[in-house]
Amino acid sequence: MKHFDIAVIPGDGIGKEVVPPSLNVLNTIAELHGGLKFSFTEFPWSCEYYLEHGEMMPESGLETLKNFNAIFLGAVGNPEMVPDHISLWGLLIKIRRAFEQTINIRPAKYFKGLRSPLVNPKDFDLLVVRENSEGEYSEVGGRIHSGQDETAIQNAVFTRKGTERAMRYAFDLAKQRKNHVTSATKSNGIVHSMPFWDEVFRDVQKDYSDIGTASYHIDALAAAFVTKPEIFDVIVASNLFGDILTDIGGAIMGSIGIAPAANLNVNGKYPSMFEPVHGSAPDIVGKNIANPIGQIWTAKMMLDHFGEAELGQRLIDVIEEVTEDQYKTPDIGGKSTTNVVADEICSRLLK
Amino acid sequence: MKHFDIAVIPGDGIGKEVVPPSLNVLNTIAELHGGLKFSFTEFPWSCEYYLEHGEMMPESGLETLKNFNAIFLGAVGNPEMVPDHISLWGLLIKIRRAFEQTINIRPAKYFKGLRSPLVNPKDFDLLVVRENSEGEYSEVGGRIHSGQDETAIQNAVFTRKGTERAMRYAFDLAKQRKNHVTSATKSNGIVHSMPFWDEVFRDVQKDYSDIGTASYHIDALAAAFVTKPEIFDVIVASNLFGDILTDIGGAIMGSIGIAPAANLNVNGKYPSMFEPVHGSAPDIVGKNIANPIGQIWTAKMMLDHFGEAELGQRLIDVIEEVTEDQYKTPDIGGKSTTNVVADEICSRLLK
Ligand SMILES: CC(C)[C@H](C(=O)O)[C@@H](O)C(=O)O
Ligand SMILES: CC(C)[C@H](C(=O)O)[C@@H](O)C(=O)O
Repeated sequence: MKHFDIAVIPGDGIGKEVVPPSLNVLNTIAELHGGLKFSFTEFPWSCEYYLEHGEMMPESGLETLKNFNAIFLGAVGNPEMVPDHISLWGLLIKIRRAFEQTINIRPAKYFKGLRSPLVNPKDFDLLVVRENSEGEYSEVGGRIHSGQDETAIQNAVFTRKGTERAMRYAFDLAKQRKNHVTSATKSNGIVHSMPFWDEVFRDVQKDYSDIGTASYHIDALAAAFVTKPEIFDVIVASNLFGDILTDIGGAIMGSIGIAPAANLNVNGKYPSMFEPVHGSAPDIVGKNIANPIGQIWTAKMMLDHFGEAELGQRLIDVIEEVTEDQYKTPDIGGKSTTNVVADEICSRLLK
Repeated sequence: MKHFDIAVIPGDGIGKEVVPPSLNVLNTIAELHGGLKFSFTEFPWSCEYYLEHGEMMPESGLETLKNFNAIFLGAVGNPEMVPDHISLWGLLIKIRRAFEQTINIRPAKYFKGLRSPLVNPKDFDLLVVRENSEGEYSEVGGRIHSGQDETAIQNAVFTRKGTERAMRYAFDLAKQRKNHVTSATKSNGIVHSMPFWDEVFRDVQKDYSDIGTASYHIDALAAAFVTKPEIFDVIVASNLFGDILTDIGGAIMGSIGIAPAANLNVNGKYPSMFEPVHGSAPDIVGKNIANPIGQIWTAKMMLDHFGEAELGQRLIDVIEEVTEDQYKTPDIGGKSTTNVVADEICSRLLK
């Protein structure tokens, strides 16, 4: 029996609505497998928790999480309750950093059952490797002066180690895919970090002579995700650029509600965290219309991570089937509720 | 007779192909008007110029340009010849900074004759106001250590003055449009500059109680440009975010080759510069297939700037007519050459 202990953090807003049905899907997968067992331990850490306790998670939170095989997270943040930079850096980004989840991978692919907003989405199938530990997301910086003279300085920090690690990860993944890596840069406008990024890319590339490469400035790349997403295989991007590109990836699939993600610890010291691309969407809370597919597809990425890629594939096939048969939430043009979609996935898995 | 002295910098690549026909269009406009005259003085500053002279423009370049009523620029950059950060900071960004062109405005709107890649582009009509003098595009930063320890630091600098100026400009424009301003932020991930940005937005907003507002994180906003661009009116964005959004704006119109831009000096001390969103596109040089519309629409923005909004409107109407009648370059699904499109615009103007 393979047994996985999973820390579950539903978080805020629709996180609380899409996580429970996704746990049902995971249990169904375990049932299907026979030799697999998941134990879920839920933690209520969220903006609500903050308003009660003055912190997004208890001081011992990281210590507690450390012992799990993985973290399964819904969504964090609700600016009406807690400023975003406090809620995110107190929970989501805190975990990413503390657990050295230095790589964030996020696929986007054309799904037949979905309504892409693109006239001609072709068969795009891309994977963004996002540097997840440094770059533009940095606590270094501050302010000087006040009133009309107030000035804010934000430092982006790019280390060779962090940059190279993300790039090597991207090249290694490309080997298992279509042997192509695109670098997201902006070295024409951003003159310290991005020329450095380009140099490291050129260096790493030398070790992968069989992999084709391209380099796009982020503005042109964002546009190309709309005009010709089918030309991309693996894209490697900084923390911020990866963030932006993967939301566009969600959009061209048909809804940001579908897009999955994995925050990977690649040195084996800490658990990885699985968290979809979408946010907590406070505007649709309580209506049972949140799309559960992003969270369920994220569960598939967790299965892959646990070495159960075959079951992961089965799950993605079923997701595709179910959407083709019009079990869809309103964001993708359907009339089904969150639970109906998830339940349908469970019952088809068992067929 | 109104007489305008215009400095013309075709620059690199297709800049050299789309600028000359656009000057013909401007001459045609002058002819149509009767009381208007343009004098064009061309400068060969470009990557080619750099390879010959070791600089993108002569030392006296800014001194020379200062005396013109406006600068009309094609495109700068060709990384095969000169690294992008050198060519851009030696010419385009140098002029933006030296001439205090602190505001960059870039419209994107649905054109009937164009083939938007979106299934349902509705009637989107938005305007991005981009802060054009500071933010993420900063020369502040550098590197420390070498080899495996090398680290690059990039500083983004946001002043209250610069931030507020862009925001007020956006609110003032919204008054003449649909009374709505959306702020592009990322205060959940970028914790010094972006919460500052949000604060300034909240402050400025108080002076415009009749204007509706919204705030989107840049990732969600980029996605919304694809899924529901019709909901936006004016968007105010930092230098980098404005850059990214306006390329997506070009993409959803049907081609980045259409999108126009104006770099505005708003204190009256120096000339403004008119330059389309697209780059020099070295891959299509010499084929006479570059889309001239971005450059011609940019000429319309220059006409507006000169107080000739009526003629500007006439020009945009003709552009729309011509594309509807299928005079289109290949990037937007047509078979016409650069010159055929521009010539057709000229002859219809005179009709
Ligand atoms: C060429 C580059 C530096 C420039 C920018 O990023 O400002 C361009 O993309 C633009 O938008 O005008
Ligand atoms: C919530 C936010 C801080 C986060 C990020 O930007 O990393 C989110 O957008 C994501 O992509 O996971």
